[in-house]
Amino acid sequence: MPEFLTLLAPDDARNLMFESINLHHVISQTVEAVSAAGRVTAVGVYAPHPLPAFPRSTVDGFAVVARDTFGTSESMPGYLNIVGEVPMGAAPSFSVQTGQCALIHTGGMLPAGTDAIVMLEYTQVVRPGEVEIQRAVANGENILRLGEDVTENQLVIPKGVRIRAAEIGGLMALGITSVQVIRRVRVALISSGDEVIEPHIFPQPGQVRDINSYTLAALISKAGGEPIFYGIVHDSFEELKDISMRALNETDIVIITAGSSASIRDLTAGVIATLGKPGVLVHGINTKPGKPTILGVCDGKAVIGLPGNPVSALVNGYLFVVPLIEKLLGIIDRIPKPSVKATLTVNLPSQTGREDWQPVKLIAKESRWLAEPVFGKSNLIFTLASADGLIKIHADANGISAGEVVDVYLMD
Amino acid sequence: MPEFLTLLAPDDARNLMFESINLHHVISQTVEAVSAAGRVTAVGVYAPHPLPAFPRSTVDGFAVVARDTFGTSESMPGYLNIVGEVPMGAAPSFSVQTGQCALIHTGGMLPAGTDAIVMLEYTQVVRPGEVEIQRAVANGENILRLGEDVTENQLVIPKGVRIRAAEIGGLMALGITSVQVIRRVRVALISSGDEVIEPHIFPQPGQVRDINSYTLAALISKAGGEPIFYGIVHDSFEELKDISMRALNETDIVIITAGSSASIRDLTAGVIATLGKPGVLVHGINTKPGKPTILGVCDGKAVIGLPGNPVSALVNGYLFVVPLIEKLLGIIDRIPKPSVKATLTVNLPSQTGREDWQPVKLIAKESRWLAEPVFGKSNLIFTLASADGLIKIHADANGISAGEVVDVYLMD
Repeated sequence: MPEFLTLLAPDDARNLMFESINLHHVISQTVEAVSAAGRVTAVGVYAPHPLPAFPRSTVDGFAVVARDTFGTSESMPGYLNIVGEVPMGAAPSFSVQTGQCALIHTGGMLPAGTDAIVMLEYTQVVRPGEVEIQRAVANGENILRLGEDVTENQLVIPKGVRIRAAEIGGLMALGITSVQVIRRVRVALISSGDEVIEPHIFPQPGQVRDINSYTLAALISKAGGEPIFYGIVHDSFEELKDISMRALNETDIVIITAGSSASIRDLTAGVIATLGKPGVLVHGINTKPGKPTILGVCDGKAVIGLPGNPVSALVNGYLFVVPLIEKLLGIIDRIPKPSVKATLTVNLPSQTGREDWQPVKLIAKESRWLAEPVFGKSNLIFTLASADGLIKIHADANGISAGEVVDVYLMD
Repeated sequence: MPEFLTLLAPDDARNLMFESINLHHVISQTVEAVSAAGRVTAVGVYAPHPLPAFPRSTVDGFAVVARDTFGTSESMPGYLNIVGEVPMGAAPSFSVQTGQCALIHTGGMLPAGTDAIVMLEYTQVVRPGEVEIQRAVANGENILRLGEDVTENQLVIPKGVRIRAAEIGGLMALGITSVQVIRRVRVALISSGDEVIEPHIFPQPGQVRDINSYTLAALISKAGGEPIFYGIVHDSFEELKDISMRALNETDIVIITAGSSASIRDLTAGVIATLGKPGVLVHGINTKPGKPTILGVCDGKAVIGLPGNPVSALVNGYLFVVPLIEKLLGIIDRIPKPSVKATLTVNLPSQTGREDWQPVKLIAKESRWLAEPVFGKSNLIFTLASADGLIKIHADANGISAGEVVDVYLMD
């Protein structure tokens, strides 16, 4: 039986993990709205008052009783008495009766009695205190009504929304200067391998510097998590178990990037099995790169074993760690991941039954983009750094032909 | 003559501004590589040593002299003497001669004399110290050669690259723990208007809270800038001039979000004209929203006047402020902006000759996405918050028909 029939597809593996995790570990915190970009609302936000809080003009002109303008035109103008000018930033001290009007600027508050604005360009002051009206306006024309944007107590930002510039603006408009968000998801990063050393150390022959803790940390920060470094442990069951247990108690997600040898992968799986129930859920995933990935859940928290190869670790970080962080943050996953359409430059064969993720470089050619696969062993970090994004080759395909248009998901 | 013939298109307006700015104001700084994600390299980064720094195995198996395996197969195996096991994280203390081999794990350093690895699954230890080889390997098979990823002194990250997870991993692999990047671009935010108050204050009738400083700050931070708040100034030429001059001296870009009335826009343009040469370059742009946008350059630094309406200010922030920050950061602008393909739900008319940017909401429908325009006056911040992205209607089009597939650029 081909191996891919015994391994779960990435989507199925991820869903299996999601079913076992406990979202009750997730807690919220209050942050200043001004620095809340990228955070996710923990509760719905309601408007404490309507917006606009008063009827406003959207143009420069004269505030009028609309009825007074009916039937006027350039050839048959009407005339109104100017009773005042609306100050910016204050309520007008006067009201307007039929036959009267007031000069008003964009954003100014409508005087009591008025219900529309005639734009300045359709008026002419004929003598001090009197203006000629050359166009009719309908009730409500050129104004924002009280509550036209939001009404009092309206739900303005639902729970589970990632806050963007527009949401921050909305909060400010309502005077909401702090907001309750989900605390950043804490992700423990454990690197294992007798050959692995900290990046600041100069390697002896046979030693390599830790890469995966740092590529994953960047990915985690961007996704809304807080990476917490637990350092490098030796290929020792007891040592890996002790530090993993501590990490599990102190964080929301534990990631072990293990060496790539079979014995080390088995060691990682063995440790995950001892940390809590149900333990290892998926050992091996039907994807390339990333077949050796291990997904586990221990007492409600996800514990993931990623391959030691930098390319596999990072690609599987996109496939499993980012969606997990988004799940814990409670993001309403309504929006598709943006991508770039590009034309594949070469035939890209793949094994039917297995989902492949291929790094590609984007090349501008006339008015379109070409996607050129970046080939290289998955140990080569700079090979990955030369790629702009990933393309997915579906499990039911045996490849993609040169000339086909593909979706390139940018890596960042 | 229709007005759009006298106004510059957004691309032309932006280019005119770019031609006058002085990039010598931009300076660099050194930051830790671990927290350099999103920053832009100020100089090219070169490899201090080759990577891998020693020949490594990519599999679990036996390190051999490839020649010794030629002609072997499952039915006609060869036999080699095992001289040792390569330790992880250290150079092997032995060398291998023809007729010999050594047990090696993934990532282990090749013993002197070997040039290929036979995978464990094609071997069988027949007696202590002797292994049966069931498959031939070519010279170089299953190994990473010294310098296969990068060679010594190779340019590994060019100047002007926005650092991603993969670049951080590459820096770590080379032991480069700090990196020279362009300092965040400092962007002054000045809000003007007698009616505008700070968000924490409860508005009196006629007053509105400052929104634009905060939406733009979020946009600026995300693009790689550092927003610096200069507060709210009254509609006074002298006051606006004084604070703008101070901001111009202290920052790299000055943004004034002015009230929307014609007199206030003229005031902003008047102030920009006094700050330095050449002053106002563009007064009015052929786009919707954003016609009143003012672009100026004063003694080499950009000074931008954005409309006071929150939707116009934010959309024009995407069109002019973000590209300006990227220009000052010196980003090699090779990569297209990612987007989402969606089907427009309704006919969207537009004025020929003017470039429109329409906020839309994305709606999942079966296996595709629908783009539903969000209509609303450009003063309504929550109308914008309900949109997921923007679509562009080209100046030469008179609209987009329902059913057409459009590119939606997500707002964030």
